Amino acid sequence: MAATASSYSITMRLYTAPDHGVVGAVATQIAASGGVVTAIDVTESRHDRLVVDVTCSASDAPHSEELVAAVAAVEGVTVHKVSDRTFLLHLGGKISVQSKVPLRTRDDLSMAYTPGVGRVSMAIYNNPEDVRKLTIKGNSVAVVTDGSAVLGLGNIGPGAALPVMEGKAALFKRFADIDAWPICLATQDTDEIVRAVEMIAPGFGGINLEDIAAPRCFEIERRLRESLDIPVFHDDQHGTAIVVLAALTNALRCVTKELADVRIVVSGAGAAGTAIVTLLLAAGAVDVVVVDREGALSADDGSLSSAHSELAAATNPRRVTGSLQDVLVDADVFVGVSAPGILDAEWIPSMAPKPVVFALANPDPEVDPAEAGKYAAVVASGRSDYPNQINNVLAFPGVFRGLLDAGAEDVTIDMLLRAAKAIADTVSAEELHPAFIIPSVFHPDVTKRVAAAISGPIGGPSGRKDG
Amino acid sequence: MAATASSYSITMRLYTAPDHGVVGAVATQIAASGGVVTAIDVTESRHDRLVVDVTCSASDAPHSEELVAAVAAVEGVTVHKVSDRTFLLHLGGKISVQSKVPLRTRDDLSMAYTPGVGRVSMAIYNNPEDVRKLTIKGNSVAVVTDGSAVLGLGNIGPGAALPVMEGKAALFKRFADIDAWPICLATQDTDEIVRAVEMIAPGFGGINLEDIAAPRCFEIERRLRESLDIPVFHDDQHGTAIVVLAALTNALRCVTKELADVRIVVSGAGAAGTAIVTLLLAAGAVDVVVVDREGALSADDGSLSSAHSELAAATNPRRVTGSLQDVLVDADVFVGVSAPGILDAEWIPSMAPKPVVFALANPDPEVDPAEAGKYAAVVASGRSDYPNQINNVLAFPGVFRGLLDAGAEDVTIDMLLRAAKAIADTVSAEELHPAFIIPSVFHPDVTKRVAAAISGPIGGPSGRKDG
Repeated sequence: MAATASSYSITMRLYTAPDHGVVGAVATQIAASGGVVTAIDVTESRHDRLVVDVTCSASDAPHSEELVAAVAAVEGVTVHKVSDRTFLLHLGGKISVQSKVPLRTRDDLSMAYTPGVGRVSMAIYNNPEDVRKLTIKGNSVAVVTDGSAVLGLGNIGPGAALPVMEGKAALFKRFADIDAWPICLATQDTDEIVRAVEMIAPGFGGINLEDIAAPRCFEIERRLRESLDIPVFHDDQHGTAIVVLAALTNALRCVTKELADVRIVVSGAGAAGTAIVTLLLAAGAVDVVVVDREGALSADDGSLSSAHSELAAATNPRRVTGSLQDVLVDADVFVGVSAPGILDAEWIPSMAPKPVVFALANPDPEVDPAEAGKYAAVVASGRSDYPNQINNVLAFPGVFRGLLDAGAEDVTIDMLLRAAKAIADTVSAEELHPAFIIPSVFHPDVTKRVAAAISGPIGGPSGRKDG
Repeated sequence: MAATASSYSITMRLYTAPDHGVVGAVATQIAASGGVVTAIDVTESRHDRLVVDVTCSASDAPHSEELVAAVAAVEGVTVHKVSDRTFLLHLGGKISVQSKVPLRTRDDLSMAYTPGVGRVSMAIYNNPEDVRKLTIKGNSVAVVTDGSAVLGLGNIGPGAALPVMEGKAALFKRFADIDAWPICLATQDTDEIVRAVEMIAPGFGGINLEDIAAPRCFEIERRLRESLDIPVFHDDQHGTAIVVLAALTNALRCVTKELADVRIVVSGAGAAGTAIVTLLLAAGAVDVVVVDREGALSADDGSLSSAHSELAAATNPRRVTGSLQDVLVDADVFVGVSAPGILDAEWIPSMAPKPVVFALANPDPEVDPAEAGKYAAVVASGRSDYPNQINNVLAFPGVFRGLLDAGAEDVTIDMLLRAAKAIADTVSAEELHPAFIIPSVFHPDVTKRVAAAISGPIGGPSGRKDG
């Protein structure tokens, strides 16, 4: 039976016979069907019936339907209504705008709006750099998507992407006190996306690109970095890369290997894979082989797309060829940002001793983490129900906090390296363990440390030596 | 001496001799220089000195400098620091984003973000109309400007416009609980502005165009209304027109004249003037003459621009020509949305009996309201320091509240007429007075009444008969 999850939590309103024994029968039935009861409230008790709200977690959507059916089958029970807690949470959206200034009197209005605001506008007109100090620009980030590669859901468009972007904005607030606003673009044309972001940029202190498909995302980011005077960061690329490097740093500490010495196989040559490879190389990795559906990318292969041939040129120094199974032989590290189930756990013993396996495809990893754990020394995944969750929330809030605090105009690779080191170092030598290579997203210091690492070098101009 | 204003309020930190008599001397000196002391705090009292914070209002920026000089001249006083309260209020911006959902536990994250959010996204993908229910789109408005016609300040650009747009967003929240976000565009090209708004539209439930120069604003609004499925409203046009019609409705009640019978002169053929004329005609006005710098617009004049010649064709049925002074003769109503000081109060007696004068140029009206009051039966202005302030805050919050509540896809002229009637009717027959033709922006019911008028007709399909 798969683990149950709050994200598949439902509340059933039941009308039952006026017999409290029925409530027990309902709870028993849910448990027997693999659900987990988290709350039972009898909201009304009359001589002819009870009204009972039962909240329970299921493992997925079909399972929650099974639970409803199981409860409906209990003698004396009618299921009146089923509420999905995740949908309830989303009603009306997940973010709001607040006024930070009082607007109680005419005097208040005259300072926050016309005529007082006119003097503030003229001050900015005369000293454009004051805009960061006198407006929200100093603390605001646009979360920009075209809806083309949303989570694991694919190209679902800007409207359907909005709940994800709102969630991201809520996380920005929760973890870094940043005012982020979702911008969901009704275009998937590279030139138009670039121009749209350029046009909205004056009101924001940073641009967080989100869930934009590769290879389009590379060009968009590159062009925006050139044209804008505020930092541009594609979280699916660089946020993921930072956390992977942080986790790998600590995983290698666990198995006492050096980044410069290990053979690394990266499965997936999209946005995340490309950024991970770039950051690993910058951190000092040497032997990195990228594998996509066709097998290992090699500079010898003339048939590659331009993005893939750049990647091939920078990697695979031994010019290996073959399938994922082939290139895994004697590899020290597997990093998957590709597709569910493509790694057979039985291949892991063919890797070098004490192998490290990061299976990060979402929501279903390249290999079941529990299966991988039978053979690998260290296992990480994107899942919250296993140890070592690789979660971008560890990186992007602190990254933007640091960028905004510094009034940065650009993101550099040294910043990314320092951010990864800051996350890795949050796990102390005493805490370090194969099942604890990465701090919790709720670690109280992680955002602050990443922000400090971004806004100023720690221990020298580059974290490269420590990677 | 001009009236002092909170928007020119300053706080001076003084170091004074340890003699409390000095504080009295400071207060006396400020009063003698025309300032108004609003607070005196002795923040530190030592044997060798006092530290005193004095807050006072001035009439304008040079006056506040005079006050500082006057205080510095007091024996035993050193001015340590001067803070401008309006600038202090603006530090860090005036709006913020809040998360409406708890993000305390991993369970919370799994519902608000991945994996739970994925089901919500797919629900919207399958039923696109659910986006209003499950996201912020149902309550959000983009406040869009190109910075080309900001307040009375002119073309100051998108960065300098940001404090104004933030103020607008704060007002949206305060008066209508709407989540508005400023979008300041780095372009002043009509095609680019249209395309930018089209591209960002998926995340918003409405578009409030703001401070975009005429005639560009007309085309932008028209094209966006055609292409978007959410309402588009240019507040400088239609918000102003609604409040002017509301105020004029009540002004004519005061002088017992009918809209259909009066001669109206509108000074100013820009965004506001054009929208006011359109709405007055829709409300039943017949004799409207528009005057610009060159004099009365007339359909006989072949030299007009296309926007002006449309306006001329719809107005001036008597084909009058001449200057403002000429066309004012026998007019019942003057509405100015043009430039400071262009109306000589001495011309008012040449108007028809019981003339109505709305001098709405900001911050300095076409005629001093006090001077106009010597001759006119009813006077209104944009200023908060005279009776009858024509303030868009009476209209736009309720307009968008109504549009969002109704899930409206468009704004119609009938909606604008109904909104004007709702505002006018907020002033009861008992309250109606030449110095009280329009409710206070803080009237508790105004937003609700306007919203109700927008989202559903009151007393029939059109308010036309009541205008």
